[in-house]
Amino acid sequence: MPKLRVESFTISLDGFGAGPDQDLNNPLGIGGTALHGWAIPTKTFQKNLFGNDSGETGVDEDFAARGFQNVGAWILGRNMFGPVRGPWPDESWRGWWGDNPVYHVPVFVLTHHARPPLVMEGGTTFHFVTEGPVVALERARAAAGGKDVRVGGGVNTIQQYLRLGLIDEMHIAISPVLLGDGERLFEGVDLTALGYTCMQHVASAQATHIVLTKQ
Amino acid sequence: MPKLRVESFTISLDGFGAGPDQDLNNPLGIGGTALHGWAIPTKTFQKNLFGNDSGETGVDEDFAARGFQNVGAWILGRNMFGPVRGPWPDESWRGWWGDNPVYHVPVFVLTHHARPPLVMEGGTTFHFVTEGPVVALERARAAAGGKDVRVGGGVNTIQQYLRLGLIDEMHIAISPVLLGDGERLFEGVDLTALGYTCMQHVASAQATHIVLTKQ
Repeated sequence: MPKLRVESFTISLDGFGAGPDQDLNNPLGIGGTALHGWAIPTKTFQKNLFGNDSGETGVDEDFAARGFQNVGAWILGRNMFGPVRGPWPDESWRGWWGDNPVYHVPVFVLTHHARPPLVMEGGTTFHFVTEGPVVALERARAAAGGKDVRVGGGVNTIQQYLRLGLIDEMHIAISPVLLGDGERLFEGVDLTALGYTCMQHVASAQATHIVLTKQ
Repeated sequence: MPKLRVESFTISLDGFGAGPDQDLNNPLGIGGTALHGWAIPTKTFQKNLFGNDSGETGVDEDFAARGFQNVGAWILGRNMFGPVRGPWPDESWRGWWGDNPVYHVPVFVLTHHARPPLVMEGGTTFHFVTEGPVVALERARAAAGGKDVRVGGGVNTIQQYLRLGLIDEMHIAISPVLLGDGERLFEGVDLTALGYTCMQHVASAQATHIVLTKQ
């Protein structure tokens, strides 16, 4: 049975998945970029984000790499797709990731505002889903061709799927930074009551990696 | 200048310093004992809690040991001293720690209900302070003889001192367990605005240790 997975989602020591005041210049909120100190140097991120063939190996790379293994479709919250809020003023916003986004598979974007599918280079197509998270997951599963579906984020989107009991596995990285304020990943989500336990716990110099699995 | 320190205070992956439903049988709340998996086997805890001369060394022990170094007095919240709530019905409750508590220095217990000092074996005297956290700290500093003061907990007491900007240094252990509910250590405390940064980040198989310092 294909899984619904969260991978490489990073929170601060004080529990925030994004800093305060997210906008075009601070897509992860103020201070939020520091969260990804563990990920940026890895071979996987260097290759996927910058096209570099160098990059570090080790614990951080192992977790970065597994996030792209056996993933047939992604689900993103609308705020992760871009900073535009409310009805789409036009179709000029095409995501944060340039003409050839890192996904290379169908990506389903949760939004309250309809928009035609957006076909990008390299196999990524953004589909905009207005019927809520359950329908988005059905469509993602159908598009994934038997592979897993990965929920990219943000915090609110992950929380919706957690509360629906639909996420099978979560890799979370805890970065040694403080954000002070922002969106707390586990706010109002009782992971114990939902049946999650910590199955893996490995640290590098840059982050503590945990894998939570639903029983 | 002597410091006000938090040491060996443990939170879960979801940020809780104690589980739900604390009572006589579950002083750390349901599931809370699992938080201390890293600490119990250490040489320091085996010696201090059980009088054993065996016990593990390594990263966890290093952090357990530093918590007792240069500490001249402690401050505890009343709920950490015991499960009795409201006015003291009598003086029969003498703490969780037997006749010879682990402190061996003066301990100042924050409470709304006056009670005479309680002299225990081994150098520990519990003083009950009804005038609030600032007065408790003044008294603790005076009693500490130039050494540091350690805030033992619980969550509410640490939060009070954090919001007052009085804690100089915090060693927090993050245990690979989920509690789901309970008291969240960093709830309503903006560590960035208060001037804290993470100065140290070391993991063992049992916990991630962080040291936060106020600038």
